[in-house]
Amino acid sequence: MSRKLAVYEPFLEKRHKEKMRAAAEKHGFEVRIVDNPEEERAFLTECEVVFGHLPEIARTSSALKWICTPFAGVDQFLKPGAFANPEAMLSNSSGAYGVTISEHVIMMLLDILRRQPEYRRIVTNHEWKRDLLIRSIKDSRITLLGTGDIGLETARRLKAFLPACINGVNRSGQNPDNCFDRILTQDAWEQILPETDVLIISLPGTKESFHMVGERQLSLLPDGAVIINVGRGSVIDQEALIRELKSGRLQAGLDVFEKEPLEKDNPVWELPNLLITPHTAGNMTLAHTVNRIVEMFLEDLDAYCAGQTPKRLIDRTRGY
Amino acid sequence: MSRKLAVYEPFLEKRHKEKMRAAAEKHGFEVRIVDNPEEERAFLTECEVVFGHLPEIARTSSALKWICTPFAGVDQFLKPGAFANPEAMLSNSSGAYGVTISEHVIMMLLDILRRQPEYRRIVTNHEWKRDLLIRSIKDSRITLLGTGDIGLETARRLKAFLPACINGVNRSGQNPDNCFDRILTQDAWEQILPETDVLIISLPGTKESFHMVGERQLSLLPDGAVIINVGRGSVIDQEALIRELKSGRLQAGLDVFEKEPLEKDNPVWELPNLLITPHTAGNMTLAHTVNRIVEMFLEDLDAYCAGQTPKRLIDRTRGY
Repeated sequence: MSRKLAVYEPFLEKRHKEKMRAAAEKHGFEVRIVDNPEEERAFLTECEVVFGHLPEIARTSSALKWICTPFAGVDQFLKPGAFANPEAMLSNSSGAYGVTISEHVIMMLLDILRRQPEYRRIVTNHEWKRDLLIRSIKDSRITLLGTGDIGLETARRLKAFLPACINGVNRSGQNPDNCFDRILTQDAWEQILPETDVLIISLPGTKESFHMVGERQLSLLPDGAVIINVGRGSVIDQEALIRELKSGRLQAGLDVFEKEPLEKDNPVWELPNLLITPHTAGNMTLAHTVNRIVEMFLEDLDAYCAGQTPKRLIDRTRGY
Repeated sequence: MSRKLAVYEPFLEKRHKEKMRAAAEKHGFEVRIVDNPEEERAFLTECEVVFGHLPEIARTSSALKWICTPFAGVDQFLKPGAFANPEAMLSNSSGAYGVTISEHVIMMLLDILRRQPEYRRIVTNHEWKRDLLIRSIKDSRITLLGTGDIGLETARRLKAFLPACINGVNRSGQNPDNCFDRILTQDAWEQILPETDVLIISLPGTKESFHMVGERQLSLLPDGAVIINVGRGSVIDQEALIRELKSGRLQAGLDVFEKEPLEKDNPVWELPNLLITPHTAGNMTLAHTVNRIVEMFLEDLDAYCAGQTPKRLIDRTRGY
């Protein structure tokens, strides 16, 4: 029986599909580019390798040896029983999203500091009003919760805006590229909160990161602090944040929520002091991102076929 | 008769006013901090030195020897007969606005590339839609028309986003801080337009810059190019730009217009492919800007009192 490999991702262009097919065929795989995973379920459950965000296949296929998701977030693959084959490897596409998410973070931050939600309403009403007091990234004290690809790319860009400081929080205590003025580990990170004007969260959704930013941590932030979350909604205690937004003490830009999608009648849509984007910071709507994802998969396919583990292998116990 | 100096600027805080009064009194001036220039017209027309954006005083006061405007744009002081005393010096506060305007430019650019005007409507309708194709500053070819304080601060920040190139256009041909990949002078600048994805305009409103970006220059830009104008509205032939926006070929972010304020019924408010801000890029709503303006005036006041010309003296023939 031939070794099977399937590729499923709606944002792939023809040139990406051709490249992936050629590479996989060269390694001896029978390749199928899947348009509708429901219809091609039979083939998918026979695959040794799957490229696609398909937790259902991982959960049900015992033939699966390696699944690579084009996403960075793998929380849907971490639940108990997520893999029919406990030996199957999971890898993600972390490293493809730093460019697009860092631009999203800086856009949201500038929109909030320069009061664009209010100016949007002014412009919609054809009013020439221009006296709202604004703030600047310059001289702001910034803390990044998460210093991986996304945190690092964000810090590199923020540096050019001359903030007062850029602090990073991670587990290792290491300072990637010396891009951060100071690195705090997760056991001591809260001490930086009273000196944080802007808190940027890019942590994955794991047991460890769950509600890491809760009522107590929020209360440590100074009045007027801005929180941007482009990681996972579960990192913030959303109810506690809502109280701070309603009181007007804090402001936020959220791309992720505890439960997505936000239902049409969810009161979160209308909260004051909140800029919402519907999980658009790091999807595949940017061509650069898709190109990188394909490049990284092909690199990992070579590694896999040479008997090595994929570069972006997830430790399913840690969750990243 | 004592030498008189007046200060008028609504955005000054108490600490700024106190500092300016103390410095001017030290130099022997009788100082008045003016709240309402209409009411204090008599004092203002007796002043040797005026700090304030008061073209009416320049036009009517023969006692005036030096007027410093807290703005960067001086077009209102350039008309024939703008000075009752032809020997009076005019200086501006160019150099105070680079930080705030560069942040505004990058905000507008990211908002446009990431289709925030459309996403605002989606979010206003409580829709969870996230598949609009977006673009990135990374790998974009950027041209800055104007490489003074604003252009330079913008280029420094843009560089961190890894664009394909940053070109500058100026009169001198000089490359400030080597921040630009290439500098073109105004006689040869149009050749860069077919290779420009993003055109950022920060030129002052002078005879020379009038309609520098007209129908022909716009037609040279590639499909989908983005134009940001934070200089003066007169630099662009607005009617020609409106045609390109209506056809959908180009996109723009405009903070300045040929005639300001935009009247309530002006159809420009509702143009497609246009992000409007009501001349908020570089006003004094950012504390950093006001601090810089005061510092620069005090520096120039010392120079003036030592018999030197102010650092930011305007050549009223050239207009900058």
